[in-house]
Amino acid sequence: MTQAIDLLAPLTHTLDAKAFSTDPGEIGPHARDWRGQIAGSAPVLFKPSTLEEVKRIVTYCNERSIALLPQGGNTGLVGGSTPQGEALISLKRMNRITKLDPENDSITVEAGTILTTVQEAAAEAGRLFPLSLGSEGSAMIGGLISTNAGGVHVLRYGMMRDLVLGLEVVLPDGRVICDLAGLRKNNTGYDLKQLFIGAEGTLGVITAATLKLFARPASRAVAIAAVDSPSAAVSLLSLVKERTGGSVAAFELMAKSAIDFALEHVPDLRQPLADPTPWSVLVEVTSGERDRAEVLMESALEAAFEAGLVRDGAIAQSQAQAEEFWRLRESIPEGEKAHGKAAKHDVSVPVSQMAAFMEEATSRAEALVEGSMVVAFGHVGDGNVHFNLARRQAGAGQDFLERARPATKLIYDLVDKYGGSISAEHGIGILKQAELAARKPVEVALMREIKRAIDPNGIMNPRVLLPAD
Amino acid sequence: MTQAIDLLAPLTHTLDAKAFSTDPGEIGPHARDWRGQIAGSAPVLFKPSTLEEVKRIVTYCNERSIALLPQGGNTGLVGGSTPQGEALISLKRMNRITKLDPENDSITVEAGTILTTVQEAAAEAGRLFPLSLGSEGSAMIGGLISTNAGGVHVLRYGMMRDLVLGLEVVLPDGRVICDLAGLRKNNTGYDLKQLFIGAEGTLGVITAATLKLFARPASRAVAIAAVDSPSAAVSLLSLVKERTGGSVAAFELMAKSAIDFALEHVPDLRQPLADPTPWSVLVEVTSGERDRAEVLMESALEAAFEAGLVRDGAIAQSQAQAEEFWRLRESIPEGEKAHGKAAKHDVSVPVSQMAAFMEEATSRAEALVEGSMVVAFGHVGDGNVHFNLARRQAGAGQDFLERARPATKLIYDLVDKYGGSISAEHGIGILKQAELAARKPVEVALMREIKRAIDPNGIMNPRVLLPAD
Repeated sequence: MTQAIDLLAPLTHTLDAKAFSTDPGEIGPHARDWRGQIAGSAPVLFKPSTLEEVKRIVTYCNERSIALLPQGGNTGLVGGSTPQGEALISLKRMNRITKLDPENDSITVEAGTILTTVQEAAAEAGRLFPLSLGSEGSAMIGGLISTNAGGVHVLRYGMMRDLVLGLEVVLPDGRVICDLAGLRKNNTGYDLKQLFIGAEGTLGVITAATLKLFARPASRAVAIAAVDSPSAAVSLLSLVKERTGGSVAAFELMAKSAIDFALEHVPDLRQPLADPTPWSVLVEVTSGERDRAEVLMESALEAAFEAGLVRDGAIAQSQAQAEEFWRLRESIPEGEKAHGKAAKHDVSVPVSQMAAFMEEATSRAEALVEGSMVVAFGHVGDGNVHFNLARRQAGAGQDFLERARPATKLIYDLVDKYGGSISAEHGIGILKQAELAARKPVEVALMREIKRAIDPNGIMNPRVLLPAD
Repeated sequence: MTQAIDLLAPLTHTLDAKAFSTDPGEIGPHARDWRGQIAGSAPVLFKPSTLEEVKRIVTYCNERSIALLPQGGNTGLVGGSTPQGEALISLKRMNRITKLDPENDSITVEAGTILTTVQEAAAEAGRLFPLSLGSEGSAMIGGLISTNAGGVHVLRYGMMRDLVLGLEVVLPDGRVICDLAGLRKNNTGYDLKQLFIGAEGTLGVITAATLKLFARPASRAVAIAAVDSPSAAVSLLSLVKERTGGSVAAFELMAKSAIDFALEHVPDLRQPLADPTPWSVLVEVTSGERDRAEVLMESALEAAFEAGLVRDGAIAQSQAQAEEFWRLRESIPEGEKAHGKAAKHDVSVPVSQMAAFMEEATSRAEALVEGSMVVAFGHVGDGNVHFNLARRQAGAGQDFLERARPATKLIYDLVDKYGGSISAEHGIGILKQAELAARKPVEVALMREIKRAIDPNGIMNPRVLLPAD
C-alpha cells in the first residue's frame, strides 16, 4: 500500500488538495460494504470534481496499470464497491444537475448526484423520475447506472437501463464518449452506453447521464391484499393489470414470515389486515387522471374478491396511510436483519413460472435445512423475488449460513430449471462470480473479449463481475 | 464470383438442397434494395432452416474469411442489406413462433418471422405487440432488431430495442449466445444482446428473439388536428400528454405539402379537415379502459382549442375512419415518391428543440436550393422528423438530387447545432458512414475495437455501418 501511494505521488502532487485523500479516517467508510460484511482497504480515495480531473486520474492509472474502483453511494449488496487495495475514485463531488428540460422530459446530472436529489428536482419541474429503492437517500446515479438498479417501480417504468437516454463515460485510456443530448431516437451504430450500464465499473468511469422523466401521476391508490399463495398473487397481478388498463405501478409480494419479522423488530409498524393469510401483496395503481387510480383499484379488488383470488384487502384512505403500507414492505429487510443471518437470493424467473418455482423451492429448501424457513418478498410483478432462507428461531446462529449453503445450490438449480436468473437486480460483484461462470461460459468469454478490447490493461474494478480466468 | 461459389462448394455439398441457392433469378430480389436505388449481387443465397445450419454456414465462412450479409425482409432504407459480392444468408425459412406466454407477456420467434405474423399471434392471445411501421407486411423480426426499428408507436412503447427481452445469436466463430427465457430482470454481467440490436448484422446472426407483449388497449381514439406551426405542434403534444395522463400512443406531424402529395398521387384518400393549415398532426390516444380514449381525446382537443393551439380538428367516429386517418399519414412516402426524387433526412433532435430546428432548417434549405420545398413529416413526439427536400414542380428532375446536396450538409449541420442525430431510426448502412465518422470519431473507434473483438476476421456485413478505416 505504501508502494501504491508512492506510485501515485506524481499524480496527487498535481491534483487539487480536495481531489484526493490518503487519510484512513476518510477512506474507512468507503472501504466497507453497506451490509457491514466485507472489510477492504484502499491506498487513496480520489474525489475529482470535474471531467478533466477524472481523465487525468484514469489516464495516469492506466499508463501504470494501477487498479481503480469507481464508487457511487457504496450501497451495493454484492461486494462490487469494496476495494481490496485498489485506488478508489468517488464521484461524490460531481453532483450537479447540469440541465433540466421538462419539454424534452429529460434531466442531465453528474454521476455523483444522489437519487433523491434527482427525484426532487423532477418533482419541482412537475415531472417524475420513477426509480425508487430503499437506499435512494445515499445511492448515486453513477452507481445506480453501473449496477442497472431495479427497485419497486420496474413493473411500470423499467430498470435503470430503461431510464438512461445517454451517458458521458471516461474510458480507461482517457478518451471520453459523451451523449447527453437527451435524444429519444438515435440509430447511429452500436448503442455504446448499454455496455456501461450494469458493467459494475469494469469498463470505464461514468461521469454524467441524461435520464428520462415522466408525467407525474395525478392520482395514486395503494392497497394491501391477502392471498393464499404465490399462484394466487400471479393471477391477481394479471387481473389487476387487465382491470386497470396497465396502470399497475408496483406489485410486491410479501410472505407472512417476512411481514412478521418487520412487525416484530421495526417500531411503529401496523398490519392493516385483520386476519392475514400466508401471503400478502402490496399493489400500487397510478393514473394520469385525478381521482382515477382509486376508482380503478376499487373495481380491480372487487373483481378479485368475486374471483376468489383475494381473502381480505385494505385500500389506503390517505397518502399518509399509503406511505404506511409502503413502510411495512420496506421494513422487511431491516426486520429480517434483526431476526438473524439469512441466506439471501435475489432471483428472477418468467412471471408465468413464479408460482411453481416458489412452491418447489420453498418445500425443498425448508426440507433440506433443518430449522429453516423461507422468507420471500419482492417484485413479483417483474418475476423477481428475494428468496431468503432464515432460521426459524431468532438469534445469531453463527453456523446457520454454513448449514444453509446446500440450499443456495438447490435454489439456483431450481432457478435454472425454471429458466431464471441468479441475479435479478443486485448484480454479480464478487459474490456470484462462480455461479455466473458456471451458467454462462460463452457469454462470460464474450464479456472478457469485450473487457480486453476496452480495458486492455485491466485497471477498471478488476476483481469484480468477471470471474478470474 | 465464380471463385466464391467454388470456395463455397464444400459447404453447399453438405447442405440440404433447400438451404441454399445459386440461381440468379432467386437471388435477384435479395440483391436489390427496397427503394430500387441500389443494385447488388451475391454468389449464393443461404436459406438455413435451423440454428445448426446457421452455425455451419457461419463457421465455414469465418474459417475462410468469406463475407456474409444476414438479410431479413430486405426493407431497409440505407443500403445495409444489399450485397456487393457477399454471400447472403436469409433467415426467411426460420419463421416459427416457438413460444407464446401470455402470463409472462412474451413471445419467442425465429428471426425470419414477419412482423404482422407476430402482431397477429399476439392479438389472438389477447395481447399487443406494438411495433408498427409501413413495411410490417414483409419486414422480419431479425432485421427489425438488427436495425433497431422505430415506427409510429415509439412514443408509447419504445423502439425495437425496448421490446426485446432476449436473443439467440450465432457469433462469427459459430459460438451461440442464447437468452430466450423472457426475464424482465437479469443483472448478470454486460447486457450482450444490446450489442446486436441496431448492429446492422455486423457482429453476428440473430436467429431468434423473445419479445415483450402488452395489454391490448380497450379503447382507441384517433384525431387529425390543424396547427399553425411545428412549435404549436410541440405545445399541443405537451398539452395532450398532460390531459390524457400519458396515454398518447402516437403523435405524427405532417406538413401540408406532404399531405398534398399523398392526396394527389395516392387513390381514395380524403382530407378530413375543411380548411387545412400549413401543418397537421395525427394524434392517437389509447386507454386500458373501454370508451375512455374517446373521452380523453375530446377533453384534450377541447383544451387545445381553448388554448388557441388548434385551428380545426376531426376525431375519427369509427375504427374505419381511424384507419382512414392513418392511411393518409402512411401514404405520404408513396405520394412523395410519385412527385419525384427528394433529398431525404431521417433526423432527430430533443423534443424541446424540434420547433426551432424545423423553422431554421426549412427557411435556410429552401433559400439554398432554388425551386425546392421542404416536405416534413414524422414522429415529432419522439423528436424524429423525416425532413425531406423536394422539387416544387413534379417530375423526374434528374439533376435535383445533385443540386440538393448542399442542403443535406446544411441540414446535418443544423442537426448538430440542435444536439440531434443524423439517423433517428433508419440506421447508417452505406449511406451515412461519412457523416457518422465525422461526428463520432471516438465512438466509431470504440465500435471498431468491439467489432474486432467479436468478428476478428471481419466477415459480418463488412461494408456496412462502420466507415472504412
